[in-house]
Amino acid sequence: MIKFLDLQKINLQFQKEIEEEIIKVYRSGWYLLGEKVREFENNLAKYIGVQETVGVANGLDSLRLILKGYKELGVINEGDEVIVPANTYIASVLAISENGLIPIFVEPDEQTFNIDISKIEEKITSKTKAIMIVHLYGQAIFSNELKLLAQKNNLKIIEDNAQAIGAEWNGIKTGNLGDAAGFSFYPGKNLGALGDAGAVSTNDADLAQTIRTLANYGSEKKYINKYRGLNSRLDEIQAVVLNTKLKYNDQENQKRRAVANYYLNNIKNARIELPKIENCIQNKQHVWHLFVIRCKQRDELQEYLTKNNIQTLVHYPIPPHKQEAYSNYNHLHFPITEKLSKEILSLPISAVLHQDEIKKVVKILNDY
Amino acid sequence: MIKFLDLQKINLQFQKEIEEEIIKVYRSGWYLLGEKVREFENNLAKYIGVQETVGVANGLDSLRLILKGYKELGVINEGDEVIVPANTYIASVLAISENGLIPIFVEPDEQTFNIDISKIEEKITSKTKAIMIVHLYGQAIFSNELKLLAQKNNLKIIEDNAQAIGAEWNGIKTGNLGDAAGFSFYPGKNLGALGDAGAVSTNDADLAQTIRTLANYGSEKKYINKYRGLNSRLDEIQAVVLNTKLKYNDQENQKRRAVANYYLNNIKNARIELPKIENCIQNKQHVWHLFVIRCKQRDELQEYLTKNNIQTLVHYPIPPHKQEAYSNYNHLHFPITEKLSKEILSLPISAVLHQDEIKKVVKILNDY
Ligand SMILES: Cc1ncc(COP(=O)(O)O)c(/C=N/[C@@H]2[C@@H](O)[C@@H](OP(=O)(O)OP(=O)(O)OC[C@H]3O[C@@H](n4cc(C)c(=O)[nH]c4=O)C[C@@H]3O)O[C@H](C)[C@H]2O)c1O
Ligand SMILES: Cc1ncc(COP(=O)(O)O)c(/C=N/[C@@H]2[C@@H](O)[C@@H](OP(=O)(O)OP(=O)(O)OC[C@H]3O[C@@H](n4cc(C)c(=O)[nH]c4=O)C[C@@H]3O)O[C@H](C)[C@H]2O)c1O
Repeated sequence: MIKFLDLQKINLQFQKEIEEEIIKVYRSGWYLLGEKVREFENNLAKYIGVQETVGVANGLDSLRLILKGYKELGVINEGDEVIVPANTYIASVLAISENGLIPIFVEPDEQTFNIDISKIEEKITSKTKAIMIVHLYGQAIFSNELKLLAQKNNLKIIEDNAQAIGAEWNGIKTGNLGDAAGFSFYPGKNLGALGDAGAVSTNDADLAQTIRTLANYGSEKKYINKYRGLNSRLDEIQAVVLNTKLKYNDQENQKRRAVANYYLNNIKNARIELPKIENCIQNKQHVWHLFVIRCKQRDELQEYLTKNNIQTLVHYPIPPHKQEAYSNYNHLHFPITEKLSKEILSLPISAVLHQDEIKKVVKILNDY
Repeated sequence: MIKFLDLQKINLQFQKEIEEEIIKVYRSGWYLLGEKVREFENNLAKYIGVQETVGVANGLDSLRLILKGYKELGVINEGDEVIVPANTYIASVLAISENGLIPIFVEPDEQTFNIDISKIEEKITSKTKAIMIVHLYGQAIFSNELKLLAQKNNLKIIEDNAQAIGAEWNGIKTGNLGDAAGFSFYPGKNLGALGDAGAVSTNDADLAQTIRTLANYGSEKKYINKYRGLNSRLDEIQAVVLNTKLKYNDQENQKRRAVANYYLNNIKNARIELPKIENCIQNKQHVWHLFVIRCKQRDELQEYLTKNNIQTLVHYPIPPHKQEAYSNYNHLHFPITEKLSKEILSLPISAVLHQDEIKKVVKILNDY
């Protein structure tokens, strides 16, 4: 069987180095808020090109803490609006609603699956305080128009960088394009930990310090609580895992580009629509967290692939505004998002996918 | 130097077993919501004597999720009141306020440091929906009067069992005395993980299922979101650590009782007040997470001990209602709680504290 993602194989690449580091942490007796997390934060900041990063417990928390941080700093207030793509993983939206803020959904561009920047301005009201962009499937989304629009309207740009670590827009890494960014190191991500983990990046030292405090029960100094905080900390073990894997991230992303390139050049089936990208191998804008094709007979195609021992997933079959959790938005209609959710399919992709496996996927798809 | 807690030494006791288990998890390629967590949940449920436990990310989250679960089930509503000891770690209170509920503080009994049950009834109003008891410092607090009071007023009893895993009241383990309980496996706890970790215990299957769903982005079935959830999961690595250490928990607690017993019998200084307990060695009501003495010259005593190379901590120097985070409660006055916060001091205690170290602590204290 060709797995959607062979995480065992991915992590066995780094086995010796990571196991040694984990054992060192175990034996050190220090497990939280220690030097390994600090080291990872520094390495990540250098990698992204930002002033500050803060390790947190997971990707959802990274986004929640950015918004909570802005609330503590008086930049955003309860009841304010945050623009967010309709076509995203539900966590982007949960971070907004959990903070008592209103998500304002914007349709995606059908070519990139990412938020359609040209449709943002019409959604801005006097209550809008931020635009959350999501670099979906690993593809950076940004433009100078977006930057100017945010400046003109005094809006923060928050990047949901859960899926795109290492991607670049005009030579700038995602996570350094807006005012603050959230990262997920969920095991299946391009840079995956051995459990939940996340981080925030920003060039705003006040925001970083506020988030660090909020994530530690609201406490800056032991037993003194400034804010009503959370417990959301990256631990030392996940930090050494991430420290090791970060060194290989560009190399792993490049291997993903090679898989994507092969798929793009060799999948030839009139019923299947491939992602559109120029110069795939050189193009730093995409790190191919997911390789998403479109097909009008998606469910049938998925079944066919399963029968042929090829595992696929759908990211995502139900958009946030149609979930039971958001029953108050169920009446909303986003036709592009809804259509995509019925046609998209994610093929196996990773740095350890074998050439034979890639070829088999192509052959089976071309035979469909 | 005698450390307040020598966590390195504690964990080296289990080195071989735990390192092997961690490496197995690393190599397995499965890190979240897997069989190791399920195994730990089953073992913990058996140990506590409850029907259900749910592994979560940390102790604060365990309490937040209990209250959020009751809110989803319609048992508690925003703006309702929850009774909580004034003398507790701030996390107990954060769990309440984070859920849009009102903490109603009750003074402690000076003998046990725990909530004074006789003072609860006067605080009950039509808005009261739950009583949160905290088994502070490792000592179980409960009574049949409390149970009847809760029944009569239709109140849930929530146990904050962060500090007391293994303690018993009348042969029943803490975590099985009320309607639901939160556990912390912060590294320094009696049962400590290698990072943040926690759990909920309950005999209420609906509540357990609701919490499990809430802790997984509100999703019961992949990509279907019933609630606006959080990300708060125990990972497989922490689960194997806890699975191993749980086997030794009673034994470790018994060693703590021996240290406490020695302190109780040998510290003799008119300026120092010792905790009051009968039959320390046999008494299952206390698991001695902390050994807390009282002294009117506390700051001076702590300095004297530091100079003599004995590390101590104060749990806690500022009560929640006097924290900046709760400026709206700063005007409240809880004289017993406030007096205790100025007089208490936590001595080194653990299963690995050496006889020579215990003797030295006693001698230095008696010489004060
Ligand atoms: C835009 C955006 N914003 C915020 C977030 C929130 O970040 P988070 O809080 O860190 O999750 C996400 C998260 N995003 C992801 C989301 O995309 C989805 O990803 P998914 O591909 O459906 O994930 P999956 O199927 O659980 O795992 C992928 C594969 O990996 C295999 N696997 C998995 C695990 C856990 C394992 O141990 N071993 C394995 O072999 C199984 C699958 O084949 O669901 C996850 C729970 C989220 O973290 C996001 O996409
Ligand atoms: C009643 C109640 N309810 C809810 C909670 C919330 O649970 P939580 O969210 O899981 O924290 C608590 C938490 N309670 C504790 C709280 O009591 C306090 O505990 P503390 O004794 O002050 O903790 P500490 O000083 O950080 O650690 C104790 C000793 O251990 C050493 N150490 C520590 C670490 C982390 C290490 O890696 N290696 C070490 O050697 C240093 C110290 O000498 O602060 C913690 C952050 C909370 O988790 C509680 O008491």
